[in-house]
Amino acid sequence: MSNKGGLEGVVVADITTSFIDGTIGKLIYSGYTIEDLAENATFEEVLFLLFNVRLPNRQEYEDLRATIAKNATIPDAVIAMMKSLPKTTPAMAVLRTAVSMLSAYDEDAENLTDKEVAKAKAFRLTGQITTICAAWMRIAKGQDPIAPRDDLGLAQNFVYMMSGEEPDETASAAINVYLVLLAEHGMNASTFATRVITATGSDMHSAIVGGIGALKGPSHGGANSEAMKMFLEIGDVDNVVPWFEKNIKNGDRRIMGIGHRVYKANDPRADVLKKHAGALAQSSGNSKWYDIAVKLSDTARADDYFIERNLYANVDYYSAIVLYTLDLDIDMFTPLFAMSRIAGWSAHVIGQMSGRLIRPTANYVGPEDLKWTPIDER
Amino acid sequence: MSNKGGLEGVVVADITTSFIDGTIGKLIYSGYTIEDLAENATFEEVLFLLFNVRLPNRQEYEDLRATIAKNATIPDAVIAMMKSLPKTTPAMAVLRTAVSMLSAYDEDAENLTDKEVAKAKAFRLTGQITTICAAWMRIAKGQDPIAPRDDLGLAQNFVYMMSGEEPDETASAAINVYLVLLAEHGMNASTFATRVITATGSDMHSAIVGGIGALKGPSHGGANSEAMKMFLEIGDVDNVVPWFEKNIKNGDRRIMGIGHRVYKANDPRADVLKKHAGALAQSSGNSKWYDIAVKLSDTARADDYFIERNLYANVDYYSAIVLYTLDLDIDMFTPLFAMSRIAGWSAHVIGQMSGRLIRPTANYVGPEDLKWTPIDER
Repeated sequence: MSNKGGLEGVVVADITTSFIDGTIGKLIYSGYTIEDLAENATFEEVLFLLFNVRLPNRQEYEDLRATIAKNATIPDAVIAMMKSLPKTTPAMAVLRTAVSMLSAYDEDAENLTDKEVAKAKAFRLTGQITTICAAWMRIAKGQDPIAPRDDLGLAQNFVYMMSGEEPDETASAAINVYLVLLAEHGMNASTFATRVITATGSDMHSAIVGGIGALKGPSHGGANSEAMKMFLEIGDVDNVVPWFEKNIKNGDRRIMGIGHRVYKANDPRADVLKKHAGALAQSSGNSKWYDIAVKLSDTARADDYFIERNLYANVDYYSAIVLYTLDLDIDMFTPLFAMSRIAGWSAHVIGQMSGRLIRPTANYVGPEDLKWTPIDER
Repeated sequence: MSNKGGLEGVVVADITTSFIDGTIGKLIYSGYTIEDLAENATFEEVLFLLFNVRLPNRQEYEDLRATIAKNATIPDAVIAMMKSLPKTTPAMAVLRTAVSMLSAYDEDAENLTDKEVAKAKAFRLTGQITTICAAWMRIAKGQDPIAPRDDLGLAQNFVYMMSGEEPDETASAAINVYLVLLAEHGMNASTFATRVITATGSDMHSAIVGGIGALKGPSHGGANSEAMKMFLEIGDVDNVVPWFEKNIKNGDRRIMGIGHRVYKANDPRADVLKKHAGALAQSSGNSKWYDIAVKLSDTARADDYFIERNLYANVDYYSAIVLYTLDLDIDMFTPLFAMSRIAGWSAHVIGQMSGRLIRPTANYVGPEDLKWTPIDER
């Protein structure tokens, strides 16, 4: 077969949402650098930007915020389904199932062609995914979920729905930065999955459900929780070097969250998250996990193997530290990624609507010209 | 951008499951022609063939049949979820949600690496999807679902679960042929979706759920129900020519179920299904829909547009007639396709396990180098 099974460098669409130059660690969304956006933007502004290729004015921004917040509730039947699940169900499986079920209650679910209707659906899904994430955190602990408020921004609403208390500013700001950084990233695997599904003419819920399924994989969004499990295994900054020697230098393990298909330089999102992780470590008085992460990354970056292959900490690496410091369960890390990436997914879905069926081909290497044999003669 | 947005001719994997030569209308599964298999094989034999690249002996066959039948039950919580849905929910959305939910009850759901475990999961899913399809047909009509029997083959079990009566031989045989014909078809869009998802290291349920979402699209598996709606709209064999003149020759509609990305000659599956549709029309004493389909296909094949573009009736076209004659609701046509294609999907999922991340790229055509502007200055 071709050595392009991973489709490296194969262009499958024109897009206006994001541009990545992996050789210099540059990422822009519709013209703005990720550093500018992380510093200044709310998640809703980014969503507007990705959909409209420009930033909203105040009225447009407030309209979008209110639309998302007012449509973020989820039907009782979906809550009932979530409550019926074993509490040990992986949160990504819960999210995948709940989003799939939501289509049954969306009156435009089967409108497959109208792009304005699709945008409105995307806004509903954006709020609803946030609600599902917060609801499952409580349901998994045997608590009742809390309904969203319609006066909050998405990041604040998420923090509010975790506890039912007035959302903490620092936590809301950290969640917002995380959501801004992860919102869109070109033709990554989950986004590509949403496009493959959309290209058959299928509906947005099907596409997003497929995206959630792809994001769940440990070589994609699942890497953030795998990174945290690794930091927990290391357990102490003094264990970093011996752990690295044993498992990486002289073992066959990989460092979860280091290395990226596209970035062969610093991942600019990781740089921003590292700063936030450091600030949160300081303000919370617990720098243990941050220190382990920095030490492990520095150890790797001093190693020839990592230098030669241009392997740097990626977005999943430091987001693990940020989310853990915010007291989120490790199982919720990847759903939080989905809470953000719904922005990029839905922009790509709309971009792919009425596009060409995506159907590559395969190289047959099996037997040929066999004759049928009756079962008792085999 | 490249004109390969549809990835035509781009090889993404080596496979042993099927080979298609669309220029001469040839399809084989692991060495055997589709005509031979449709004439002789049960669906379980085909499943064994796709997984093992050889036909089973009698003991292996009986073991597989029994394994599928014994694991085809679905948990009460999934039935409860299905009962809670609006009865108008599209059956494909129900199937997508139910399969997603099943993962919560599969103790090997999160085993992402063991191929033998994956095979056993695929056998469970094969039976469970059949049960979900039959259950939803009853639940949507306000009836209680019927549990599968462990002494039947898959096609018979499906017919049994529709009514609870001893399965009719003719109906079971027709369903079996349908399942054999649709089981696998190279790198089609839904199969490719399952591979994109699997390549992130994600779980089999996520992959199959993505496949169901892709199959749902009217340019893929959704075409069979669209074809039947078109036949119903035509309504009478005498309306075929005027309908064709108005909607196709002088209108901008397409004939659903005619034309295929890969076949530029007869689709061999359509040929087999046409024979079965004809036989069912005769035995049921109702040849109306069969006659409309044949007349419309003949009308199209006599038209220069269809001749020049090599557009022939595909598998969806005559499968619509077969399934309608078997008294299946139109909404169930595409789930029946999924009931069969789970064979190919799961074989491809296992083939893709531990494969390379599938991540193509995009061509950025948006703005560059914009400076952030505060919201009140926009």
